[in-house]
Amino acid sequence: MKIRIGVEIMKILDLRSDTVTQPTPEMREAIASALVGDDVYGDDPTVNELERQAAERLGKEAALFVSSGTMGNLLGVQSQTQRGDEVILGARSHIITHEVGHLAQICQCMGRTIDNPDDRIYPDDIRQAIRPDDIHEPPTTLLCLENALSNGTVVPLELMRQDYAAAKEAGLNVHLDGARLFNAATALGVDAAELAACADSVTFCLSKGLCAPVGSMLCGTKEFIARARRNRKRIGGGLRQAGFLAAAGLIAMNQMSLRLGEDHANAKTLAAMLEELDGVAVAKDQLDINMVFLTLNGLAAPERFVDALKEQGILINGADHGVYRLVTHWGIETADLPRIAAAIDRCRKEL
Amino acid sequence: MKIRIGVEIMKILDLRSDTVTQPTPEMREAIASALVGDDVYGDDPTVNELERQAAERLGKEAALFVSSGTMGNLLGVQSQTQRGDEVILGARSHIITHEVGHLAQICQCMGRTIDNPDDRIYPDDIRQAIRPDDIHEPPTTLLCLENALSNGTVVPLELMRQDYAAAKEAGLNVHLDGARLFNAATALGVDAAELAACADSVTFCLSKGLCAPVGSMLCGTKEFIARARRNRKRIGGGLRQAGFLAAAGLIAMNQMSLRLGEDHANAKTLAAMLEELDGVAVAKDQLDINMVFLTLNGLAAPERFVDALKEQGILINGADHGVYRLVTHWGIETADLPRIAAAIDRCRKEL
Amino acid sequence: MKIRIGVEIMKILDLRSDTVTQPTPEMREAIASALVGDDVYGDDPTVNELERQAAERLGKEAALFVSSGTMGNLLGVQSQTQRGDEVILGARSHIITHEVGHLAQICQCMGRTIDNPDDRIYPDDIRQAIRPDDIHEPPTTLLCLENALSNGTVVPLELMRQDYAAAKEAGLNVHLDGARLFNAATALGVDAAELAACADSVTFCLSKGLCAPVGSMLCGTKEFIARARRNRKRIGGGLRQAGFLAAAGLIAMNQMSLRLGEDHANAKTLAAMLEELDGVAVAKDQLDINMVFLTLNGLAAPERFVDALKEQGILINGADHGVYRLVTHWGIETADLPRIAAAIDRCRKEL
Amino acid sequence: MKIRIGVEIMKILDLRSDTVTQPTPEMREAIASALVGDDVYGDDPTVNELERQAAERLGKEAALFVSSGTMGNLLGVQSQTQRGDEVILGARSHIITHEVGHLAQICQCMGRTIDNPDDRIYPDDIRQAIRPDDIHEPPTTLLCLENALSNGTVVPLELMRQDYAAAKEAGLNVHLDGARLFNAATALGVDAAELAACADSVTFCLSKGLCAPVGSMLCGTKEFIARARRNRKRIGGGLRQAGFLAAAGLIAMNQMSLRLGEDHANAKTLAAMLEELDGVAVAKDQLDINMVFLTLNGLAAPERFVDALKEQGILINGADHGVYRLVTHWGIETADLPRIAAAIDRCRKEL
Repeated sequence: MKIRIGVEIMKILDLRSDTVTQPTPEMREAIASALVGDDVYGDDPTVNELERQAAERLGKEAALFVSSGTMGNLLGVQSQTQRGDEVILGARSHIITHEVGHLAQICQCMGRTIDNPDDRIYPDDIRQAIRPDDIHEPPTTLLCLENALSNGTVVPLELMRQDYAAAKEAGLNVHLDGARLFNAATALGVDAAELAACADSVTFCLSKGLCAPVGSMLCGTKEFIARARRNRKRIGGGLRQAGFLAAAGLIAMNQMSLRLGEDHANAKTLAAMLEELDGVAVAKDQLDINMVFLTLNGLAAPERFVDALKEQGILINGADHGVYRLVTHWGIETADLPRIAAAIDRCRKEL
Repeated sequence: MKIRIGVEIMKILDLRSDTVTQPTPEMREAIASALVGDDVYGDDPTVNELERQAAERLGKEAALFVSSGTMGNLLGVQSQTQRGDEVILGARSHIITHEVGHLAQICQCMGRTIDNPDDRIYPDDIRQAIRPDDIHEPPTTLLCLENALSNGTVVPLELMRQDYAAAKEAGLNVHLDGARLFNAATALGVDAAELAACADSVTFCLSKGLCAPVGSMLCGTKEFIARARRNRKRIGGGLRQAGFLAAAGLIAMNQMSLRLGEDHANAKTLAAMLEELDGVAVAKDQLDINMVFLTLNGLAAPERFVDALKEQGILINGADHGVYRLVTHWGIETADLPRIAAAIDRCRKEL
Repeated sequence: MKIRIGVEIMKILDLRSDTVTQPTPEMREAIASALVGDDVYGDDPTVNELERQAAERLGKEAALFVSSGTMGNLLGVQSQTQRGDEVILGARSHIITHEVGHLAQICQCMGRTIDNPDDRIYPDDIRQAIRPDDIHEPPTTLLCLENALSNGTVVPLELMRQDYAAAKEAGLNVHLDGARLFNAATALGVDAAELAACADSVTFCLSKGLCAPVGSMLCGTKEFIARARRNRKRIGGGLRQAGFLAAAGLIAMNQMSLRLGEDHANAKTLAAMLEELDGVAVAKDQLDINMVFLTLNGLAAPERFVDALKEQGILINGADHGVYRLVTHWGIETADLPRIAAAIDRCRKEL
Repeated sequence: MKIRIGVEIMKILDLRSDTVTQPTPEMREAIASALVGDDVYGDDPTVNELERQAAERLGKEAALFVSSGTMGNLLGVQSQTQRGDEVILGARSHIITHEVGHLAQICQCMGRTIDNPDDRIYPDDIRQAIRPDDIHEPPTTLLCLENALSNGTVVPLELMRQDYAAAKEAGLNVHLDGARLFNAATALGVDAAELAACADSVTFCLSKGLCAPVGSMLCGTKEFIARARRNRKRIGGGLRQAGFLAAAGLIAMNQMSLRLGEDHANAKTLAAMLEELDGVAVAKDQLDINMVFLTLNGLAAPERFVDALKEQGILINGADHGVYRLVTHWGIETADLPRIAAAIDRCRKEL
């Protein structure tokens, strides 16, 4: 998207999130020519192909195309719990913070939150959080992990393996919210399937950094996916000719997942540029993926900062407890980074 | 879709449902060139336009794009009830028969079903079904109507007005499942907005006879839509760059809704052809829209009938209590009808 | 209870329900001297004894003391279903009409109601109501029977056996709401355990005709009762020193259950007296247990009838669709019946 | 309760909880002669009287008799929230730890837990925990406080006032779990109504230290109690002739609440005795009410400690993370304390 400033045309740099990514030209082409059918009858060949490939890619038996990461998490939790169970998950996990409480309202599960400063969950956290078998207490049946974390870091494969082992030892299932699973795999230098092996169910997004317009995949055993498919139907999440979206999803999963290193490199480069500036502090330990977290010192009118940047053609979200998050993605090129740093510098000084 | 039989190419005639419709070439073009944005940020111009036009078309304040008719019904009921309420609806309504029980599981509402042979709901049914104000009983708060009905008939505007008045007099809200609202409006010769005026919330499908690949609209007051939007978010029904689907939806609503009379005429013509055949009985009082219901007499091997037709390139669903349903739509042309009748005649005789 | 009218003392005859029964003197004595303990620790000997005897009496493995028939039904259904299941039950069953919709709100089950004029459920009703295995439909998992029915009739043992067989053949469990199970057994001349054998779980009330102040029993397998006990705990239905109530419950179950024939005989005698009166019609086919249903003709001021009777020291509830219900119980003696008939005659004539 | 050891009779000292208290002789007398009626018809005079007095005692408009503290909390939360809301409460509050997850399963509310070492909730905790108005987040609508806390301490009146003000400023309602409200009031030297004034709804137990066999009171506005009464009915918590229990409840509330200082003094005396012993450490900052928390050092066979004490006629629960809790109550007299201390000393040494 471009807007005119004076006589010049300026590219809008949208750093609010990688959810704003537009589909690539190749995706648009695939969408235009997609083979589609009625997925409720199992007749959509493109959806079928995407589900087959996604399962294979993550080393799971089966997969289901869903509308969003939130739906993937909802179905993942709901299809592995009974009402009245307890789920262990991070205090700042997406399920807790950004999914409108479906954990309680739809899944009817208690959330036992783990609140470590690094947002990770350690095996001892799991062991201590599990409820005893007591008539007064809800049974603990599920652990939800996240990788990458929303704080911009990734969880080492070894820790995930330990968490999985701790959960399994206690008879828990594990759901992995891998909204940015391929970012995590890229940053860790491991295969996504190795991370997926640390969970019974996994969801990852085709949108966000992978640029598909809509959709996430939920993967697990055949039997689990059959339950999830019925649960998807109940909320009206079954789509008819979903092949249009799946066509873009195939490109997202197969091609776009290979280029995430660029976004990560851009985040690091941008962070280095910002570090050079007066009054800007970058969280250097939160630079694993495509996110840069920064705080600004000596900002006289912080409430005006977002708008001031917008006038420069740069979009960011407001600060969360004083911390701004910038997200790089396919729509942000390395050549754009100096302009971003310069604009931040200027706006900071002028406010 | 076409398959080869011998050296000939035969067009597949899919009469299972109008949900199997493929998008039109014009839709594919619109999809390919759609302007899209992140709808969660309110940034998708095509979705915004579709929601604006849908509300206007039905004479409501606001509208919401949802993934399916089931999601439209779920959000429509959920956003107008509290847990523990009772809802009056038809015993064979889609919500009761085909939506996996979200009425109880997600909305947590009791369903008080009205079971008339014609599947209509009359004002006296409503009055008698409403619960007294008693501590032992759930409060009745919502009436769900359907038009067109899934039995192939439509409900007269005047009856809908009476039902709405009866509901309002008792303080109930009314939700209209208008999955085939434009079929009903076409058959009744009224404006869809007149039907929509008999309900507080209305859902209609852009797929089915209107041929969009995915999507339905939910319409109502601004305040209702705000609640529905939050409820949609909780189930992960919020889509990112949904403009691709909305682009097809605009054509569905604005253009395809005008041609449904053709499908209805084709259904009547097909029914007349079938009536001529030996051993075939057509339900003549269920011919209001694009559906033909028939029974076959003297069929020695009814379990083979569907497969036999399939070999002729004609797809239908199995019988429901001995009744077969054929559905006409954009993919079935008038010129195809003799072939359908002939195939049914042949298969019936041979089995 | 007695009130003074002028200088005379008049016994109040409360025919509203058998729930109004007062505990017998023997019960009061047992309550006063009950051995009690903390039932949450399994320490209440009187509760333990009642649960042991109730299970034995009905031929089940285990039993649970609950606060009410409604709680027995709630736990019976909830402990044998998953959210999103469908339950088959009578359209005028207590669960549908008088339990505030816990079926949907707490159990989250759809209710498929059977609506026969005699309120019975026949094997064919069950077979037709069971859902096919289809992703669009909730699974049917439970049948709820009632005996005695709230219309004053009982269901023959043979029909219950057929229903049970039909349910089991389809893989359903069966819950029996036996709020007045001993009335049914008495009227049918069978052992309560024979009726209980037609269900996987059974609840019966110690209050109502059996005169205990509070409480019902839920019976079934050990494993089922363990689940029900946890579900009871979740709603705070676990009582501490419940032995006071259990002490009365033992007398109710063991002694009062033997005298219900008197109440039934009184109901029939009263019905015969009323039949003699002008303008009174008794439902002769609804006289199986301790209830008399009657309609009054030519009543100029029906809204005053209840109050007029009250002035005569006779309490009844208002008519339901023109039908009054009189309930006999331990507090109504044979000698009281002429006074009741005379008062009804007088009030009817004067209004 | 007494058991014979050899030829001697030994009084059993049950320190597991104050829930084990037996009703007083006066209560047994009141139970035996209670005036009762059918509470569902509003006809139980003793229940009516208890509800009237409880409301008056706490300075609320209305009150409801419920079966347990858990039921009081369930109805308190459920009647002040909608499904999908978020509730702020202590990480070790009774609702979180001991009520089988009704918060999620029945109330369908997310729990945002506050995890301070002293188990208190401070105004800043509340302000930080409240969710912004955002479509991704559940609305925060309720704060649950507890006083006394289950760690044996009480919350100062001034802090409760500040919490209430913070909640109200943000539009939240406040529920107070006052299972041991009169213990808290006694320890703080304030009137229970002053504590109750810091909440919109309050529950307190008639059992526990107050010795009634069964029951708790839920208090609040008339409109709130009307909702709670319907919610109680739905779970079958409405009792018929509950006057037997209410009769004991009146004595509990009016008389037993005045003597709790004795239990507190006994706890302090016992703590002092235990402090003198080798290898026993008492938590001196958790001695506000009728509880003593202790740890034992150098115990070779801790798993045998509970059984060894039982052989001495002293009942305690197993340790929770190494900490034993002893609870004093009406069944433990000052004269019993030396025997308790001596037995603990002996068993500790012998194991």
